Amino acid sequence: MSKRHWEDFAPGSVAIYGPRLVTREEIIAFAAEFDPQPMHLDEAAGQATLLGGLAASGWHSCCLLMRMIADGFVNQTKSMGAPGVEEIRWLEPLRPGTRVWVRTTVLETRASNSRPQVGFVKCRFEMIDAYGTVLTSLVSPLMIERRATGARQ
Amino acid sequence: MSKRHWEDFAPGSVAIYGPRLVTREEIIAFAAEFDPQPMHLDEAAGQATLLGGLAASGWHSCCLLMRMIADGFVNQTKSMGAPGVEEIRWLEPLRPGTRVWVRTTVLETRASNSRPQVGFVKCRFEMIDAYGTVLTSLVSPLMIERRATGARQ
Repeated sequence: MSKRHWEDFAPGSVAIYGPRLVTREEIIAFAAEFDPQPMHLDEAAGQATLLGGLAASGWHSCCLLMRMIADGFVNQTKSMGAPGVEEIRWLEPLRPGTRVWVRTTVLETRASNSRPQVGFVKCRFEMIDAYGTVLTSLVSPLMIERRATGARQ
Repeated sequence: MSKRHWEDFAPGSVAIYGPRLVTREEIIAFAAEFDPQPMHLDEAAGQATLLGGLAASGWHSCCLLMRMIADGFVNQTKSMGAPGVEEIRWLEPLRPGTRVWVRTTVLETRASNSRPQVGFVKCRFEMIDAYGTVLTSLVSPLMIERRATGARQ
């Protein structure tokens, strides 16, 4: 199967990947390993906080989102990674038993100035639930290989 | 042991937490679960990319950083979580066998306008290696409980 190159992405395009059911067990296991704060480990502790109950670490949401887009499209592209993330917003808690999707919107595409084989595809990634509520939003410029150096789109 | 409140953080203060040795096994296990791109799973695949060899997922770096600051100070504060992250920069690859630290710099503190019991402590978190090279940098406003609502610092 031929992989998608930078030229294959157009600003404004939207795609949805998933769903994935997020379990209590994985929320607690992730928190125990990477973010052992009480509200990510224990229901009663979560109720005593702004989260109002057990909720996944924000980093867990990001990792689940990454897995869904890796399976959904990144691993079907000539991906070269990403230099970073422009912003992450943890808008609503991710609760045990929630089914989530990722909505990907291409915000802009541009060729790299310094690396002629590289193009940037800046995307907004939103983790949404079955009601369309956005739980987590992040913006990141993916680096994807260009089909032909300097060739026209 | 009494926990630190928002009032206990001062702009400009710097602290270092760690070290932690990052193994090849955990890099590959994390990638297999959350970011199964070839350069995070396989040495030869990594050599063919901009990373120039096997390197941890950027999300793995963020999660390791979170764990080090949770152990280092967040769990000794009246932490209330964080609304998001302002930026993440994945500056240099995190290689197997690297010993890492987290340098935390308090950039600013401010009381919440909407929630009188909450204060923000905006920090820059940098994952550094034994040579002081910054591998990953991120900026995030932590929410920490105030000692007394509206009391002076």
